[in-house]
Amino acid sequence: MVQRPRGTRDFTPAAMKRRMALERRLEDVATRHGFARVQTPVFESLELFTAKSGPGVIKQLYAFQDKGERELTLRPELTAPVMRMIAEEMRNETKPLRLSYYGQCYRYEEFKTGRYREFFQYGVELIGATGPLAEAEVIALAMNMLSEVHLLDWEIRIGHVGVLKDALLGLGLSGEVDPVAGEPPVASAMRLLDKGDSDGLDALFAAHGLEAAHAASLRALAALEGGMETLAPARELLAGMEGVSLEALDELETTLLAVQKLAPRPPKLVVDLTVARGLDYYTGTVFEVKVPALGGEGQVLGGGSYKLLHLFGLPDLDPCCGFGLGFDRVLLALEAQAKELGRTEAVVGETDRRPFLAVIPFNVDAMAVLPLVADLRRAGVRVELELRGRKIGKALGWADGVGCTHAMVVGPNELHDKKANIKHLSSGEQTEVGLNTDDVLEGLMASSQ
Amino acid sequence: MVQRPRGTRDFTPAAMKRRMALERRLEDVATRHGFARVQTPVFESLELFTAKSGPGVIKQLYAFQDKGERELTLRPELTAPVMRMIAEEMRNETKPLRLSYYGQCYRYEEFKTGRYREFFQYGVELIGATGPLAEAEVIALAMNMLSEVHLLDWEIRIGHVGVLKDALLGLGLSGEVDPVAGEPPVASAMRLLDKGDSDGLDALFAAHGLEAAHAASLRALAALEGGMETLAPARELLAGMEGVSLEALDELETTLLAVQKLAPRPPKLVVDLTVARGLDYYTGTVFEVKVPALGGEGQVLGGGSYKLLHLFGLPDLDPCCGFGLGFDRVLLALEAQAKELGRTEAVVGETDRRPFLAVIPFNVDAMAVLPLVADLRRAGVRVELELRGRKIGKALGWADGVGCTHAMVVGPNELHDKKANIKHLSSGEQTEVGLNTDDVLEGLMASSQ
Repeated sequence: MVQRPRGTRDFTPAAMKRRMALERRLEDVATRHGFARVQTPVFESLELFTAKSGPGVIKQLYAFQDKGERELTLRPELTAPVMRMIAEEMRNETKPLRLSYYGQCYRYEEFKTGRYREFFQYGVELIGATGPLAEAEVIALAMNMLSEVHLLDWEIRIGHVGVLKDALLGLGLSGEVDPVAGEPPVASAMRLLDKGDSDGLDALFAAHGLEAAHAASLRALAALEGGMETLAPARELLAGMEGVSLEALDELETTLLAVQKLAPRPPKLVVDLTVARGLDYYTGTVFEVKVPALGGEGQVLGGGSYKLLHLFGLPDLDPCCGFGLGFDRVLLALEAQAKELGRTEAVVGETDRRPFLAVIPFNVDAMAVLPLVADLRRAGVRVELELRGRKIGKALGWADGVGCTHAMVVGPNELHDKKANIKHLSSGEQTEVGLNTDDVLEGLMASSQ
Repeated sequence: MVQRPRGTRDFTPAAMKRRMALERRLEDVATRHGFARVQTPVFESLELFTAKSGPGVIKQLYAFQDKGERELTLRPELTAPVMRMIAEEMRNETKPLRLSYYGQCYRYEEFKTGRYREFFQYGVELIGATGPLAEAEVIALAMNMLSEVHLLDWEIRIGHVGVLKDALLGLGLSGEVDPVAGEPPVASAMRLLDKGDSDGLDALFAAHGLEAAHAASLRALAALEGGMETLAPARELLAGMEGVSLEALDELETTLLAVQKLAPRPPKLVVDLTVARGLDYYTGTVFEVKVPALGGEGQVLGGGSYKLLHLFGLPDLDPCCGFGLGFDRVLLALEAQAKELGRTEAVVGETDRRPFLAVIPFNVDAMAVLPLVADLRRAGVRVELELRGRKIGKALGWADGVGCTHAMVVGPNELHDKKANIKHLSSGEQTEVGLNTDDVLEGLMASSQ
């Protein structure tokens, strides 16, 4: 028997209702923030991702050759494809562009629970505007999405890659690649700060003739973590280092103030200057969202300001700002939350509230009920028709099994009297109605309240 | 510069609005008919499609090996994956299953206009019920979908593979493979009828000792084409051949009568006994929809009753019935129709009717307007915020360019007076409102009517 490929999933009707409700909800929030959906192909030229992430990325890709020996790959993420699309199709559109996207992505790695080889990403990019206000628009959108899908327990961590980097540059460390280390001294220092390697940082400072006291200040900066009150000690530490600019911190502060107005009252907002996400293309504010209930890293969303357009032959006039949301992980968090709260609905709107009527012809020619079935469907009612000629008891069980809310048996008496009973399946209540569209509609509405 | 892979497409916001509206509309019709969405992975084991269509299919596939040397392929269609899914996950669910699906499919072939290598299919399957009523439910759904997306000019051709096949079997032709011909004589005869090769059919009949008059009757049957009135001469022709059963024709007639009740008034319904679709797995009623405006074959939809579950180790107790709808082709037909009718909207609902407000801070700190922006979005209004500090004239041009319906400039006077003007961009009309959420909402509603 042929089986589903490793690391992939099938989604049943119940799973899809939930997923479609979540997607709709995210898209609606994005729409209200002025963002509009785009879509790119599932596979791209391999070069698109090696250009962004280096050749090391290939081992995690589903790469293949087409019959013309072109190197292709299933996409591992959606930012690079969207940038490529902008370069090819939207370079002359009115800026800024506010784009949203949703789709499958692929990674080749050992299969672990919750880590699928085919997974789903939702994301947005704001392209062609820069600065704290643009960044705040994107961060607020991320936060409003999580609020509006009613996720209760999450924290957003916001930083700015420029704060530590500009401090290191201001102190005199070079941003040019050191041939021995294979990376710029600034990057080495950032890495050592990230890892909390004090001895390594001290050694690097000594090797470049910088004051050891400044290494201590940088460690203190990196260790800062908290709410808006964190900005004051950060400002003090930076001011204590000669030649170091406060520009990045000022930007971060403006962004944070704007975020508070555009997305008030998140469950937890943390300022953390080490939210660097280890990705070289980030240039300004960076942020990530964690959900404690997921355990481990718990990250469900990450983003920031970045420059990538140059990879596609476009001028990087402005940085872009965007985020990727792990659709599967957000859903997992919502499901865990629903379980804890004892709710059956994990995503608001996953249950279709319209009546769902099973029409059960019994001992009559089904032809007689078809016009009514057709009319009710046209009027917006969901209608199942019993197709197997089940007896009444079994048919009612079937109707319940396929998720109908109501059932209506039509036998010879019903046809003769032009009347039938609508049975509300969960309460057992019956409503007698005339066997015509208007009366059935009225009966369904009355019995659904 | 990295480019989009050959034969694939990017979809801009305008294109996606249209596509999402069409998908929503199709899904809504399917939902009212009791169908529910499922989803399967974009790639499958290669074996899944060779089992269904033979090894010849490989040359049209995007097949590749994963790093574990498993043979995989991007899916060329969605019926086989859905059948696999049922076998793996839904074998014990209450039957019949009414499933719908939508997604990307892939074929490797020379790129021609309108024939993309990544294309989109929408489809449904009804599994676990058989007979004319089940078939009519599926055919009526196809027809109601086309009616409800307001496609005006299309024709549905309905036949039954059993009519000609049973006649040939009844006359004494064998359904077993003939070692010389490499196929059953019945299949040879069907092929000759399809091609209109009279000499070939006569020779085949002579070789098997059948009356030449019957070959003429079969040709007459195959040539029949028309409305319900076609059934009478078909019945006459079949009755004139000894030993030939009328069962398939009776079934077809019942199906057609039920279709007329479930989906009244199609623009054109044609009975055609040669709608065979050249696919061996069809077992009963078959149908296809053509749109003359597309030119050429013009086919946008095809389906019928088939048996495939045995391929996945499940008993084929009942045939399934389903159809695949060429999403891109239906959209093409709708776009051609809109052009001809001089309409800008090709799919009903593609235009979001909600007001879309551009908020333009001018010579003020944008922070002052952010709470209002956030509030309006929470209230359901789409709001763009001007991020580039454009002057008023340019900002109004920008607002129009990104599709806003209204714009509101907020300068120092507006902040001081707590009043602003909402400008309706297409009419130029202005409405003065208080600078608070309720008043802006009211002003937008008033000016959108």
